[in-house]
Amino acid sequence: MKRINFAFGVHLHQPLGNFDHVFEFALEKSYRPFMETLWRFERVKTAVHVTGTLWEWIEAHHPEFFDLMRKLQDRGQIEVLGGGFYEPILSVIPEWDRKAQIALMNRRIKKMFGKKPKGMWTAERVWEPQLASIIARGGIEYVVLDDYHFKAAGLLSSELFGYFVTEDAGERLAVFPISERLRYLIPFAKPQEPIDYLREMASDDGERLLVMIDDCEKFGVWPGTHKWVFKEKWLEKFLKLLSEADFINFVTPSEFKNSSKPSGRVYLPTCSYHEMGEWSLPTESALVYESLLAQLKEDDSLERYKPFVRGGFWRGFLAKYPESNYMHKRMCSVSKMVHGAKVPASVRKLAATNVMRAQCNCAYWHGIFGGLYFPHLRFAIYRELIEAESLIQSSLLGKKKWVSLSQDDIDADGVDEVLIGNPNLGCVLSRTGGAMVELDCRRSKTNLLDSLSRHKEAYHAHLRASDDEADTDEHASIHDRQFTTSERMMKRLNYDWHRKWSFVDHFLAAGTKLADVRDAKYRDLGDFVKARFDLKTSESGSVASAEFARCGHLYFDEGRRSLELKKRFSVEAAGSSVCCDYEIRNADGESIEAVFGVEFSIACYGDKEHCSFSRGDDVWEPLADTASLERVSAVRLADPYRGYTVKLEWDGEAGVFRFPLETVSQSEKGFDLIKQATTVVVLWPLNLAGGASLKRSVLLDLSPL
Amino acid sequence: MKRINFAFGVHLHQPLGNFDHVFEFALEKSYRPFMETLWRFERVKTAVHVTGTLWEWIEAHHPEFFDLMRKLQDRGQIEVLGGGFYEPILSVIPEWDRKAQIALMNRRIKKMFGKKPKGMWTAERVWEPQLASIIARGGIEYVVLDDYHFKAAGLLSSELFGYFVTEDAGERLAVFPISERLRYLIPFAKPQEPIDYLREMASDDGERLLVMIDDCEKFGVWPGTHKWVFKEKWLEKFLKLLSEADFINFVTPSEFKNSSKPSGRVYLPTCSYHEMGEWSLPTESALVYESLLAQLKEDDSLERYKPFVRGGFWRGFLAKYPESNYMHKRMCSVSKMVHGAKVPASVRKLAATNVMRAQCNCAYWHGIFGGLYFPHLRFAIYRELIEAESLIQSSLLGKKKWVSLSQDDIDADGVDEVLIGNPNLGCVLSRTGGAMVELDCRRSKTNLLDSLSRHKEAYHAHLRASDDEADTDEHASIHDRQFTTSERMMKRLNYDWHRKWSFVDHFLAAGTKLADVRDAKYRDLGDFVKARFDLKTSESGSVASAEFARCGHLYFDEGRRSLELKKRFSVEAAGSSVCCDYEIRNADGESIEAVFGVEFSIACYGDKEHCSFSRGDDVWEPLADTASLERVSAVRLADPYRGYTVKLEWDGEAGVFRFPLETVSQSEKGFDLIKQATTVVVLWPLNLAGGASLKRSVLLDLSPL
Repeated sequence: MKRINFAFGVHLHQPLGNFDHVFEFALEKSYRPFMETLWRFERVKTAVHVTGTLWEWIEAHHPEFFDLMRKLQDRGQIEVLGGGFYEPILSVIPEWDRKAQIALMNRRIKKMFGKKPKGMWTAERVWEPQLASIIARGGIEYVVLDDYHFKAAGLLSSELFGYFVTEDAGERLAVFPISERLRYLIPFAKPQEPIDYLREMASDDGERLLVMIDDCEKFGVWPGTHKWVFKEKWLEKFLKLLSEADFINFVTPSEFKNSSKPSGRVYLPTCSYHEMGEWSLPTESALVYESLLAQLKEDDSLERYKPFVRGGFWRGFLAKYPESNYMHKRMCSVSKMVHGAKVPASVRKLAATNVMRAQCNCAYWHGIFGGLYFPHLRFAIYRELIEAESLIQSSLLGKKKWVSLSQDDIDADGVDEVLIGNPNLGCVLSRTGGAMVELDCRRSKTNLLDSLSRHKEAYHAHLRASDDEADTDEHASIHDRQFTTSERMMKRLNYDWHRKWSFVDHFLAAGTKLADVRDAKYRDLGDFVKARFDLKTSESGSVASAEFARCGHLYFDEGRRSLELKKRFSVEAAGSSVCCDYEIRNADGESIEAVFGVEFSIACYGDKEHCSFSRGDDVWEPLADTASLERVSAVRLADPYRGYTVKLEWDGEAGVFRFPLETVSQSEKGFDLIKQATTVVVLWPLNLAGGASLKRSVLLDLSPL
Repeated sequence: MKRINFAFGVHLHQPLGNFDHVFEFALEKSYRPFMETLWRFERVKTAVHVTGTLWEWIEAHHPEFFDLMRKLQDRGQIEVLGGGFYEPILSVIPEWDRKAQIALMNRRIKKMFGKKPKGMWTAERVWEPQLASIIARGGIEYVVLDDYHFKAAGLLSSELFGYFVTEDAGERLAVFPISERLRYLIPFAKPQEPIDYLREMASDDGERLLVMIDDCEKFGVWPGTHKWVFKEKWLEKFLKLLSEADFINFVTPSEFKNSSKPSGRVYLPTCSYHEMGEWSLPTESALVYESLLAQLKEDDSLERYKPFVRGGFWRGFLAKYPESNYMHKRMCSVSKMVHGAKVPASVRKLAATNVMRAQCNCAYWHGIFGGLYFPHLRFAIYRELIEAESLIQSSLLGKKKWVSLSQDDIDADGVDEVLIGNPNLGCVLSRTGGAMVELDCRRSKTNLLDSLSRHKEAYHAHLRASDDEADTDEHASIHDRQFTTSERMMKRLNYDWHRKWSFVDHFLAAGTKLADVRDAKYRDLGDFVKARFDLKTSESGSVASAEFARCGHLYFDEGRRSLELKKRFSVEAAGSSVCCDYEIRNADGESIEAVFGVEFSIACYGDKEHCSFSRGDDVWEPLADTASLERVSAVRLADPYRGYTVKLEWDGEAGVFRFPLETVSQSEKGFDLIKQATTVVVLWPLNLAGGASLKRSVLLDLSPL
């Protein structure tokens, strides 16, 4: 009889920052019923990986779930996999954190399950060749990756059984290919189909191994799957058929590794599953890439050539989304600070754990899941980073009042940013536009400027103006689902030409409408927003300030005019506000007429934010979601979820545009219209004779709610 | 007027181990006339990279060449580029060597040219993302890579001007794309064509930069190019046209970098130039990949989709060629030994330099150049490794007689090899087949077993049985040349089913002919060659031995017979020989009739090796290149180039097959038939009744010539 070895497994993960009810839903609809069903089929073995964010939530809320896993382990039914504890992309985090993440997972597994893991899961199966030595030095013997990695290295499908040896810097590591075929069949085909495939692959010597380890969320969390997998008993039927298949020998990966020789040597390129290649490409390239896939599909040769059709790789997200890059570089810099600071070991340990949490990959990229587009995920990253930074700073500086000013190339673009901080707030200012890039409220642990520009996405081309339709094929793979959308979203497909920072200085033609600014369909007469400013900084014990200056131009139909723009940010040691003093000088002989607009985009959740305005009498009136007002002297925003209030005040009166910054993105459930921030543009008429100046001050005051 | 910046440059390299006359040829036909021609066109600036092997040869033989380069530098015409001094693939050498190779190059350039380099050349433009931090930490600000790398990351051709910022672990590095278009035009198109292309790419703001830095050997060393580039004055015409083009601003990369902002942020995948992707794939996959290229070419869409059509990456060569893997792992292990041993710093420095030389990439891979297929290149690698090892061992052990035995997984396949050494020799024995993998003669610094199996290559399919034809298009790019070949080579297209090690144990049917064994067209009755043997080792102060044993089978038409094979290798402390005692026992009831053949493949050069045999009377008769003899008692091989004599002796008489091990490979000059080794198979009749045994001893004695 032909026989085959089979290693089954599941990966359980929830992103840092996900809502409590989502954790609960996943546990009840997927993780628990999965393990309970598994318990009834003793022959079937399963590798199980639980990531750190979920691990901590389970420990706090449902420790009995780990009891169930331990029972399964005691019966020899599951092998627990290690990994980077908080599910980081290992290749892009600092060296010490790589070691620490793997070691932390090893310790937690040892404590909970009595033995260290032999193998590990790699987040999103993002591979780079140098990981072999990094992982091997973490005491791990094997990883599981997609068979696509191996095909990309030139191995043939017919060779992809068992495990291979890879190496870096002389350190060996075993790598198991996960069968893509089984990954697509389970649980989306009829339960018999994966069994048939296993039978087809079985051989006389019985030495082959097929591996299928994938997201446990496919079993119950993904749309429609709970009904299909549990209510209609897909999993039960599948496990029953497996149990009855006497040609299958169930193994865990390490059982197989202990008893079998490697199938060969392999070096895997920078790679993940095939789809990641498409997502990580810049949008224009992604469209070309899509058309290549379509052409090969039409020629019926895509399957044959897929190993050699490759898009970008994970790090491409850092180049594609500046917001991801900024968050990543900020994380690297906080990590460096935590590991370099002279603080007690206990403080460092706490702060280092915050940093490791902030390395959870989900918020840094975007594919079929919302990821980077979800404000609650980014919010959680910044929360951990701000907490780490505050821990170190309070340890170093104690309870005294202080204000600090430093320069560092936070976003790694070759130009230093200015960092100003005091016990209440921290802000980062860029020489590009002299804008504010980050503003942290330490008490609420919020980066108030954590928003997202509206980027063009390749899938926007697939958006069709149609009403939402019911999903007819509920258990279809999320890779196949046809999304529906609405006209409302089509209208929101506007793309920003600059980063949605704050203190962004526009010069508008008189009569420019709110809708035009909102939809990025206006003309900025100035050339300041993306230009590099000169910088002077000064610092005393009680106040730190940074002055940005630039001679630029306004471009009118009748010709360009020279303009000098100076803006000076000041922060006091005990203050909870940033003051910005503007001076705009017409450096031209001719007079200038325009509207000077300072743009702020303040992070907030869709329906949880309250915005009001005042005309200077301390009477606050609600400010509608989309509103254009005259003669306003202050605007106030409060976000109860994030726990802050921010007030923008200026001298005299100004006009105000207020509108939501909304992005259109895809997720596994369809298309999402997400409010990233409230944008407020403060507007002053700018009528300057040659040589004349305008001075204005804007005070940004923040306080916890 | 539209303007453009242009950075021109050349990379001068000769592999470790190349023949002296080739260095001389390259200097006189290419490097010197290139620089002399450049001297006449003062406006044109050039980046120049000279690798360590060549550097040392120039210093020793033609120091005036560096005088010429210095004169060019003093005039501001050249910028000297750094790199890994001996041109290693940086990503695959140990960490300390990466640092040391870059630092060594920095020091040598500082000493010779008065200032440290700002930028560097990357060997074969082999990129892996983690190199950014490794290179940046070496004090280097930028690297030049192919524009293909950038396209693979999803950048569009229209964006590929200037330089980009990449990053790893928070360390920034600038990367310049080399224009593939210019790389193909220079010097293969008419001199006006690259100028026209530069003009076409010029822009109103004049801010664009195009870079063309490529092998200097294209100017005079590659077949036909000396005539074209110098005799017919291609270079002179080109430089004259460049000089006269007032729309071109000549810069070196660092001049441009100092004065211009980066064009963006990029993360480059594991990548090199496009062709490397094809070469590094396993042969069967390379054929599929070729057909994809052909299909897209036919659809006229290859250019559009090429960024997403990718083969393997450099490390793939280590999986594709076990000989490359072995040499690489051996190099890693010697490097570890050198850096870990307690020896005086002066000894370590010498040995570390040997190891760094042995990291020169050329012998480790194979594409359009011979590389791995060239015995003289591999010979030079082993020479450096053996020298490094001997330096450390003499320092540790002094002049006393010693013999050592240890186990280590040299080839990183998960199973330890046995290493036996004494002051005269070192050998490595594998549990696979109980064969000898490496045999070093310390005095001649030669690995006698450094041969190459006959591997199937994708380009073998293109071999046509035709007489050699003259190359009609002499200045065609080597990528386009049509190779010619001969029927003789077609006949040599045989592929080995096992590694061409020594002490490889075959069981042949009676009457098996030499030609069948030579052409790998025979049947091995046994299952020993590729099977894992049991191992016992023993060691005293005066003798070290390793015994390999296995119960296997012979497969006859009438059924299989059980057979026990034991082989015991011994080396004495003062000896210059390895003795192997065989015991073969028929573990079956039935009698066995076969021929027992022990195969040796001894490295040698084609026409420089002398082989003789003796019938036991110490009279040595020449043994023809291909010969089958009876009743021989010893065979002797001497290679004057390598400087060794090796003698194989056994008790009594035996038959002998002798034939050359010849490979068919491509190089830039066409197809090469290369003698890798002399294979000697010692043959004994094996007629064993059930339970009976045969004992034989083979003495392998080596001594310098």
